[in-house]
Amino acid sequence: MLRNLNLDDFGIYEGISETIVTTSRGWAMNAAPMGIIRRKDKLFMRIFKDSTTYNNVLSEKILVANVIWDPIIIVSATFSDLNDSEFETVNFNSRTFVSLKKAQCWVAFECTNTKLTSESLVTELVPVRTHINKCMIRAPNRGLFGIIEACIHATRYRLTNDGKYLKLIKAYGDIVEKCGGENEKEAMNLLYSYL
Amino acid sequence: MLRNLNLDDFGIYEGISETIVTTSRGWAMNAAPMGIIRRKDKLFMRIFKDSTTYNNVLSEKILVANVIWDPIIIVSATFSDLNDSEFETVNFNSRTFVSLKKAQCWVAFECTNTKLTSESLVTELVPVRTHINKCMIRAPNRGLFGIIEACIHATRYRLTNDGKYLKLIKAYGDIVEKCGGENEKEAMNLLYSYL
Repeated sequence: MLRNLNLDDFGIYEGISETIVTTSRGWAMNAAPMGIIRRKDKLFMRIFKDSTTYNNVLSEKILVANVIWDPIIIVSATFSDLNDSEFETVNFNSRTFVSLKKAQCWVAFECTNTKLTSESLVTELVPVRTHINKCMIRAPNRGLFGIIEACIHATRYRLTNDGKYLKLIKAYGDIVEKCGGENEKEAMNLLYSYL
Repeated sequence: MLRNLNLDDFGIYEGISETIVTTSRGWAMNAAPMGIIRRKDKLFMRIFKDSTTYNNVLSEKILVANVIWDPIIIVSATFSDLNDSEFETVNFNSRTFVSLKKAQCWVAFECTNTKLTSESLVTELVPVRTHINKCMIRAPNRGLFGIIEACIHATRYRLTNDGKYLKLIKAYGDIVEKCGGENEKEAMNLLYSYL
């Protein structure tokens, strides 16, 4: 455990931080968007069943939360497998874990006090290793936020087939079109291709 | 003009960047949320009539765009006047301009080729001075974006009194409640107090 770690330094503030969680099992590496819940200095994550992250966390009891603002990585990690070339491997305390090369920073966590429910697991996260690649200033962009919201609604749409989510996705697509840059627009087109 | 300036370094990417624009005229300092439109390396801003920013830009032909993620500042600047203590004054080329102390960074622009329409002005922005206070990493937080969206809809609501905007504000309020930290929740309560 890292004592006296200031989670703010790694972009993880009170509330829910949207990160890309990377896990591995054997040679297989996985990335998926996940929210870290922070209440004071306690961190939790809820991971739904039947996902690779769920299985990897149960088996390995470790995960890496990557802070990343790349809209194409966010969409790709939501709907498909990232290329192996997007990952890098870190060895620490005779364990191997994986992170994303393009992350601004990442924090590796041990998963403890894991509780299983019928639908998901809830696990407490204890930071064991951190890394900062680069600090980038970025003004808020509504298009980038639109990508994150559209990913959430698209996931729900694929689970339920409920048309109300399509309307929401389209509304966020309009925000991306108006406010996003080329990367956000490309990411939105990629998202549409998965519906 | 600053040649070879990489706008990315100051958080201003392609698309529309949400910033807080600070202007002044005589002793009076003003802050208001404004989007900077970037297409390649050209920057523009559209400023609606009957605002202090509009009058100050027409008179002084200079503005400062502050990159800031503080939800309380964002809400306060949308609906009221910031305290003078939030500003700082910079002298440059025998001109005085103002920025926000809490900004991660700011860019001062000269406003050129200003075109007036019946409702607004559109001006080209030429960077003349930059400053970085601190680089902070921050994972995306849906609550923080919820504050920005709610501010936009609340401004429309105050202009039109149309109830559809209230519904949208409430929907974003729910996201803030679920995903925001204490700062975002306080900012949302402040926003509700202006409706």
